[in-house]
Amino acid sequence: MAAEKLSTRHLLGIKDIDRNDIELIFETADNFKEVINRPIKKVPSLRDITIANIFFENSTRTKLSFELAEKRLSADIVNFAASSSSVSKGETLIDTVNNILAMKVDMVVMRHPYAGAGVFLSKHINAQIVNAGDGAHEHPTQALLDAFSIRQKLGDVAGKKVVIVGDILHSRVAISNILCLQKLGAEVMVCGPTTLIPKFINGLGVKVEHDLRKALNWCDVANMLRIQLERQDIKYFPSLREYAMMYGLNKQILDSLDKEIVVMHPGPINRGVEITSDVADSKQSIILEQVENGVAVRMAVLYLLASQRD
Amino acid sequence: MAAEKLSTRHLLGIKDIDRNDIELIFETADNFKEVINRPIKKVPSLRDITIANIFFENSTRTKLSFELAEKRLSADIVNFAASSSSVSKGETLIDTVNNILAMKVDMVVMRHPYAGAGVFLSKHINAQIVNAGDGAHEHPTQALLDAFSIRQKLGDVAGKKVVIVGDILHSRVAISNILCLQKLGAEVMVCGPTTLIPKFINGLGVKVEHDLRKALNWCDVANMLRIQLERQDIKYFPSLREYAMMYGLNKQILDSLDKEIVVMHPGPINRGVEITSDVADSKQSIILEQVENGVAVRMAVLYLLASQRD
Amino acid sequence: MAAEKLSTRHLLGIKDIDRNDIELIFETADNFKEVINRPIKKVPSLRDITIANIFFENSTRTKLSFELAEKRLSADIVNFAASSSSVSKGETLIDTVNNILAMKVDMVVMRHPYAGAGVFLSKHINAQIVNAGDGAHEHPTQALLDAFSIRQKLGDVAGKKVVIVGDILHSRVAISNILCLQKLGAEVMVCGPTTLIPKFINGLGVKVEHDLRKALNWCDVANMLRIQLERQDIKYFPSLREYAMMYGLNKQILDSLDKEIVVMHPGPINRGVEITSDVADSKQSIILEQVENGVAVRMAVLYLLASQRD
Repeated sequence: MAAEKLSTRHLLGIKDIDRNDIELIFETADNFKEVINRPIKKVPSLRDITIANIFFENSTRTKLSFELAEKRLSADIVNFAASSSSVSKGETLIDTVNNILAMKVDMVVMRHPYAGAGVFLSKHINAQIVNAGDGAHEHPTQALLDAFSIRQKLGDVAGKKVVIVGDILHSRVAISNILCLQKLGAEVMVCGPTTLIPKFINGLGVKVEHDLRKALNWCDVANMLRIQLERQDIKYFPSLREYAMMYGLNKQILDSLDKEIVVMHPGPINRGVEITSDVADSKQSIILEQVENGVAVRMAVLYLLASQRD
Repeated sequence: MAAEKLSTRHLLGIKDIDRNDIELIFETADNFKEVINRPIKKVPSLRDITIANIFFENSTRTKLSFELAEKRLSADIVNFAASSSSVSKGETLIDTVNNILAMKVDMVVMRHPYAGAGVFLSKHINAQIVNAGDGAHEHPTQALLDAFSIRQKLGDVAGKKVVIVGDILHSRVAISNILCLQKLGAEVMVCGPTTLIPKFINGLGVKVEHDLRKALNWCDVANMLRIQLERQDIKYFPSLREYAMMYGLNKQILDSLDKEIVVMHPGPINRGVEITSDVADSKQSIILEQVENGVAVRMAVLYLLASQRD
Repeated sequence: MAAEKLSTRHLLGIKDIDRNDIELIFETADNFKEVINRPIKKVPSLRDITIANIFFENSTRTKLSFELAEKRLSADIVNFAASSSSVSKGETLIDTVNNILAMKVDMVVMRHPYAGAGVFLSKHINAQIVNAGDGAHEHPTQALLDAFSIRQKLGDVAGKKVVIVGDILHSRVAISNILCLQKLGAEVMVCGPTTLIPKFINGLGVKVEHDLRKALNWCDVANMLRIQLERQDIKYFPSLREYAMMYGLNKQILDSLDKEIVVMHPGPINRGVEITSDVADSKQSIILEQVENGVAVRMAVLYLLASQRD
């Protein structure tokens, strides 16, 4: 049985929580999955809580998932997008957030382009903070929903072999995923071209493999990261075509493996690049389950943090 | 008396529904008009329904009307605008919508620039879809609220003569209007310069007239479409000045007719182009009634579709 | 004791209300401050009211504050931003707002770049209007929350000396502040370079001072306006560096005064320009109290106007 409460007031990164925390989140999420599959998909749990979703970067998917989690919990919500904000008027991050908090906001869900923005804020601000992605650093709720989805599909995460394939370097989710899976007792490998695997990965205790076929033969689960085609600041090498040939997952490779592996993707998918359509839509893919679980896991995180309040 | 339930799970176009469906929608809308004129303008009917408003094109008026209809019905709402979305990250339409649905969304209200987008989606997606405009193809709720407004003003639509004036070619609402009015037993004429009347109009069984005065003398109702001044991709011929002279409706023409006709406009109005201000604000104009009825008709559509759910 | 009801159906400017109105708003805001400091920060008072927030200019802070005030009062809310609106389609202001009202909206909170937009609208529109800033003309709720914050800090506004420092010329809040403070019996001074003090100020019965130190030695409260760095259309003279040297408030000046004055700022702050960080974060600063009081004061305004309805 999991602990009764989280060991932390914020959720800034997987780095700061332990296995008991994760298991408590999962057990709570199990309950919320039942809630969101009922006809009335709501509970009044957070009707005394006001949550500000502060997004300094676009994120349709994560923002929508948090918003739905908050609505299912009956929280009051205010949305704050940086583009239409005082930030363009030269205000500091602390001033911006302090102003929102002065309006009696209890929790802040924040996405920010810079690593450590959430941690920085938590030291200067009197509110609970959920990191919804800080640059290529941590994205803890994505890691939690990914591990929760593996647990749901395979019964347990402990002892499983998970390979994270692709652009580890620019990924928002790779580090959190590695830490979360390791804390739950999984073995983790990263696989991609040397140009997309950062050097610090060696310090994280994961295997590194450059041959996709070998990686797939080793693993139980393959998490295919997306190539961020829309980012002008990234110069991809190898080229997209070469990448798809060497690291794209298609049905032919999948069927040639000895066992049936589970395929994941944080979305949005570039069909034909990281994975082909027949793989994305196959029974081995749990991509849409990840999305569904995202709402339940975020409900659990928000609910548990709220019950931590002074 | 109308049927008890709609013959369709989606509302993709007027083409797919019959007179019984339309009458059921109107009778339901009558009830909701009472609701929205009460002090408490809400009913709890859809509190177990989550609706995603997915707009791949801007539409203040239609979006606001749907949002208010959804709020009056106590539905949970998520808004998704294409500009701030994963669509710019190269995701397919089906993936985008499937992701939203995986978050336990029950109905999708969608506007899309391409004709047939709603129909396409309905074949690949497990959710109910309301077409809020697919290019210059169908915009069924606008046609329904227009016909509902004529029925409210003249008692019945059957036997009435309606002329649709202006830019039929680029209009989002012309085809749906023609189909809806015909299904309810009205006679329909289109009137405008040859350059703005598409050839396929001949297959729809409507009269075509190029002389505005003749058209107005024939009709009971004139629906004045807007010239889309903001669209850079349309080269208008005749020029705006010529158009206003030949097809603009002013008080002088209106007063010179034998009878008092009803004036409609889907909005937003270009005052002085399609109609002059004295006409827009006259007692013959039901432009604001159209807007008011829009909320009631959309409530009826959403309510009836929701009661169709498996 | 204050009056029982406001003397006006709209809140267009401080010019149109009297001291009784202001005191009624303050007493009502006192009650709402209690509400928003309770665990459940909501009352059902406006659950039969639909409010449209129509912002023709960006305003994160004011918009968020109004939205939260509306949510705390359980109103239904629709948001309308000009950038994504029919306004770009050439529609007139009256048509835009009339269309929103036809959807059964009861009150309009509007920000508009032109002075007098709210007054104009109130003469042509059948809804209650709250001016959330019309150019450099009035911004009544800001003035009310500022005076409310002085009253909270110093017990009373009457007899107090308040200096408004900085860019009076382009300020959205200066005029409303002057009128509000005077109606409550305060003495008002403006202080800034001659280039930023408009001539009409002479007709308002305020003192004018160009030396910051003299102004501060005179006052009980200093309201430091912001330099609008983001506005390309303003050519500041003196330069930013000179301005900060001559009119920026730092701890050294503050500590050199005979008495402890109260420091205010409407936000967002340019730290190091109008005030230094140590002043902004000092105990003499009530900047965050202003933000908190903003929600309570706006709740009071909306509540009192709603109880005026026919």
